[in-house]
Amino acid sequence: MLLSKKRLAHIVFESDDRASKAFDLVLLLLIFGSIIVAILDSVAELHLKYGRIFLVLELAFTLLFTLEYVLRVWLTSKTLKYVISFYGIVDLLAILPVYLSFFIANTHLLSVVRALRLLRVIRILKLGRYLAEAEFLRESLKASAAKIQIFLFMVLTIVLIMGTLMFVVEGPEHGFTSIPVGMYWAIVTLTTVGFGDITPVTALGQLMASLIMLMGYAIIAVPTGIVTSEMARRRKSESLEDLKSCTFCGFDRLDRGDRYCRNCGEKRVNSPD
Amino acid sequence: MLLSKKRLAHIVFESDDRASKAFDLVLLLLIFGSIIVAILDSVAELHLKYGRIFLVLELAFTLLFTLEYVLRVWLTSKTLKYVISFYGIVDLLAILPVYLSFFIANTHLLSVVRALRLLRVIRILKLGRYLAEAEFLRESLKASAAKIQIFLFMVLTIVLIMGTLMFVVEGPEHGFTSIPVGMYWAIVTLTTVGFGDITPVTALGQLMASLIMLMGYAIIAVPTGIVTSEMARRRKSESLEDLKSCTFCGFDRLDRGDRYCRNCGEKRVNSPD
Amino acid sequence: MLLSKKRLAHIVFESDDRASKAFDLVLLLLIFGSIIVAILDSVAELHLKYGRIFLVLELAFTLLFTLEYVLRVWLTSKTLKYVISFYGIVDLLAILPVYLSFFIANTHLLSVVRALRLLRVIRILKLGRYLAEAEFLRESLKASAAKIQIFLFMVLTIVLIMGTLMFVVEGPEHGFTSIPVGMYWAIVTLTTVGFGDITPVTALGQLMASLIMLMGYAIIAVPTGIVTSEMARRRKSESLEDLKSCTFCGFDRLDRGDRYCRNCGEKRVNSPD
Amino acid sequence: MLLSKKRLAHIVFESDDRASKAFDLVLLLLIFGSIIVAILDSVAELHLKYGRIFLVLELAFTLLFTLEYVLRVWLTSKTLKYVISFYGIVDLLAILPVYLSFFIANTHLLSVVRALRLLRVIRILKLGRYLAEAEFLRESLKASAAKIQIFLFMVLTIVLIMGTLMFVVEGPEHGFTSIPVGMYWAIVTLTTVGFGDITPVTALGQLMASLIMLMGYAIIAVPTGIVTSEMARRRKSESLEDLKSCTFCGFDRLDRGDRYCRNCGEKRVNSPD
Repeated sequence: MLLSKKRLAHIVFESDDRASKAFDLVLLLLIFGSIIVAILDSVAELHLKYGRIFLVLELAFTLLFTLEYVLRVWLTSKTLKYVISFYGIVDLLAILPVYLSFFIANTHLLSVVRALRLLRVIRILKLGRYLAEAEFLRESLKASAAKIQIFLFMVLTIVLIMGTLMFVVEGPEHGFTSIPVGMYWAIVTLTTVGFGDITPVTALGQLMASLIMLMGYAIIAVPTGIVTSEMARRRKSESLEDLKSCTFCGFDRLDRGDRYCRNCGEKRVNSPD
Repeated sequence: MLLSKKRLAHIVFESDDRASKAFDLVLLLLIFGSIIVAILDSVAELHLKYGRIFLVLELAFTLLFTLEYVLRVWLTSKTLKYVISFYGIVDLLAILPVYLSFFIANTHLLSVVRALRLLRVIRILKLGRYLAEAEFLRESLKASAAKIQIFLFMVLTIVLIMGTLMFVVEGPEHGFTSIPVGMYWAIVTLTTVGFGDITPVTALGQLMASLIMLMGYAIIAVPTGIVTSEMARRRKSESLEDLKSCTFCGFDRLDRGDRYCRNCGEKRVNSPD
Repeated sequence: MLLSKKRLAHIVFESDDRASKAFDLVLLLLIFGSIIVAILDSVAELHLKYGRIFLVLELAFTLLFTLEYVLRVWLTSKTLKYVISFYGIVDLLAILPVYLSFFIANTHLLSVVRALRLLRVIRILKLGRYLAEAEFLRESLKASAAKIQIFLFMVLTIVLIMGTLMFVVEGPEHGFTSIPVGMYWAIVTLTTVGFGDITPVTALGQLMASLIMLMGYAIIAVPTGIVTSEMARRRKSESLEDLKSCTFCGFDRLDRGDRYCRNCGEKRVNSPD
Repeated sequence: MLLSKKRLAHIVFESDDRASKAFDLVLLLLIFGSIIVAILDSVAELHLKYGRIFLVLELAFTLLFTLEYVLRVWLTSKTLKYVISFYGIVDLLAILPVYLSFFIANTHLLSVVRALRLLRVIRILKLGRYLAEAEFLRESLKASAAKIQIFLFMVLTIVLIMGTLMFVVEGPEHGFTSIPVGMYWAIVTLTTVGFGDITPVTALGQLMASLIMLMGYAIIAVPTGIVTSEMARRRKSESLEDLKSCTFCGFDRLDRGDRYCRNCGEKRVNSPD
């Protein structure tokens, strides 16, 4: 069957009728499929056993993704904008390496390029669009973003100072080989992850580590406090929905208990008394 | 003494009179006993010393549990429904392996089967029924379930992407032997557990690890925020439910205890006195 | 100067005049001193250098604590009650081992006894009495205690089941030598401590570990939610202090906005209108 | 161009006109620059390659910081107060070591002195002044400081007791070489960092470790609760401050925007219009 370009564009970019919904669904399945193949192929045993099958599947997925990419580039009204957009680049990175890998002899470079194709997992972010419910969380986080940024800035300051001090106190011989490594350790510790790959050995180092740990213990409360109070605020504003409106001036922010409209001063019909 | 089947069923499935309460209690003690025996038997030294006693006890428990299982199957009106229910399967798994282990020669298979019988610890969940107080927590969690699911979905997306990137960056030679392992590491890190069995070695890897740790530090706030604000809401709604309204002026913010409307001064109908 | 037994008892047990306050202070300093000595003495290098001095100091402290103990036993009206009380036993454990150590030849037993004397650090809990401010926290925790208990019960159930499953899946060859060890690992993981002394090696084990970690991540919110909402509630009830009382019936729970007493129905003096 | 001392002082200490703002900016860039150089120089490879360049840059920064320090000392009205102030000492520590390092032969002492100069990272705290937004967080933390202090005191008590008990139970042969080390371990565990450099081996030790972990799990809620409820309170009080009251009926729950009293219907004096 033949489709007008306009119709095609609608199917590809919208999702409001059967055809476009189907297109989205198929795309989702393809993304999932390619990710699962990539995951399985990364397991040595499976790669040895089914490497060939995975390769075929991967090429198939790549062809389909290429088709999608070409379609998008061809159909979109603002081609450039899409190509240089985040998803545009991700979509390209998901297919380009596979083609490049054919023209590369150097085995090391080849492995790098082949690794790059795994970046297609990032396309899973496209699913986000289909989760309306995720809004609440995203907004809560966005609303708190400013505060969280400052918080992270504070954390990084502590990390910088502590990382440097530990580098000075413990030194390379105890694994704190440089300030960046010290900062890495400080983050591992402050976030209470505590891998234990690098640990203070000297008494002074352990004392300072204890301080930073207690600090982390005390300030881990801050982001929680921010997000929680933010969410509580949202809930309240939502609960404002049972507001009444004035039958005269239509002012719509009256509480149940109001006896006179606080906007026009008219006595409210079915007012408490 | 002889019991009608109806009476037996009542004793087994209800818990509203002495006999049925006693049945529940005995069952609880048996479950606890069998679990304790299983735990002790799993300790090598104790197994060597008291292995025989444990075996006897286990057989005794198994017989009793078998009796219970048969009773339930025989007495329940909807046998199939019970048999294929979660607890039905757990109850069966708690006894079946012990019997199977008699007919198995293959030592390896035997050990597997014997291990399976430990699944009877899951029967401890039956105690949940006896904790009315647990309701509050369970409901708070259930009410937040939807949000927590989305949250976990977000987390898993981060885990998938980060796990893949770390696999690409660090590679098998540093313990990131496959994407699933990389995802395992990402979960270990994002949840701030940080075993340290696998840790980034390259500078880039440590940088990315730092990012994921700070991310985890920032988003650990989200589930807390969800549950906390949910609990706060519950408290409030509970304390709001017992607001009364005046039958004269309709003022609707009276406490149960008010004897006169605090707005129009009218004596309340069905007021406390 | 000679003191009546009554006066002495007052000094020892009360803390409302200069003498008794001084007694408390001296006691505090002694407790701190003995703890610091114990800490320093536990450091091998310091023990070698200043072992003798520490020993002398320790004996001095012991004598003084003995004097205090005897005083308390002699002065208190209900001797037995004190002796078998928590602090009574702690006070005794703080001095007894030192005396015992003189009559013990067996070196191993000796070291155990000498170790026991360190239990005197527990006496630091006595300071709690002097922190009125600590009340708020203690009460918040106490008020939430019931919920937290149930929460811990839930956690322990998860720990029991997960510990057993990991013992079954990973087995002794991977460090999960028994169910108790498996439960220890489950606690280490669920609380996000993650020592890494025992870690899953098999794919299935790592998958289950991931589940328990995400679970811990989701339910770590619960205790926080409990305590936070509890604290919020407290604050609010505190803020109820700006309540008005009726000038007729003295009913003291009127809101600022009430125009008639909700208890006796009288129009309020300086009522809003 | 020639500047009056007064003018210079203004440029150095204020930040309200172009010149002084420029001075601040330049200073910020210098601090950042010196920190970045220090960080890069701490990386062995980079030090070998670019050591000379870093040295030159460092000397340049040091000269400029010296100039700044001299300026501040010369210009400030209360010299001594600045010199012995926190930032005064930090500023000095940022330059002194570099000069000292020229007059020191002893290589070990030299390395120590050279390490000290890294303390200049602490100057990053000066940036704090430029973050007005950080106020909210700082105040929330300050307001909760008292409670957090008590909380930390509680934590330290638990740490002292647990550290001692673990030293008694596990002993030096399992890495708990002294009470301070035991306390270090207790902090690592209670804060859920869990490095794993020291872990309990005996059954009793693991049991006690489990207890302390669950304790930490339950009390990690406290600081969060404190800060969160504090933040919530702030929000509310902020949103309450702008409530107005009616000049006729005294009804005191009017919003700023109300034009008529919602209780008596009177037009508000100084109402919006």
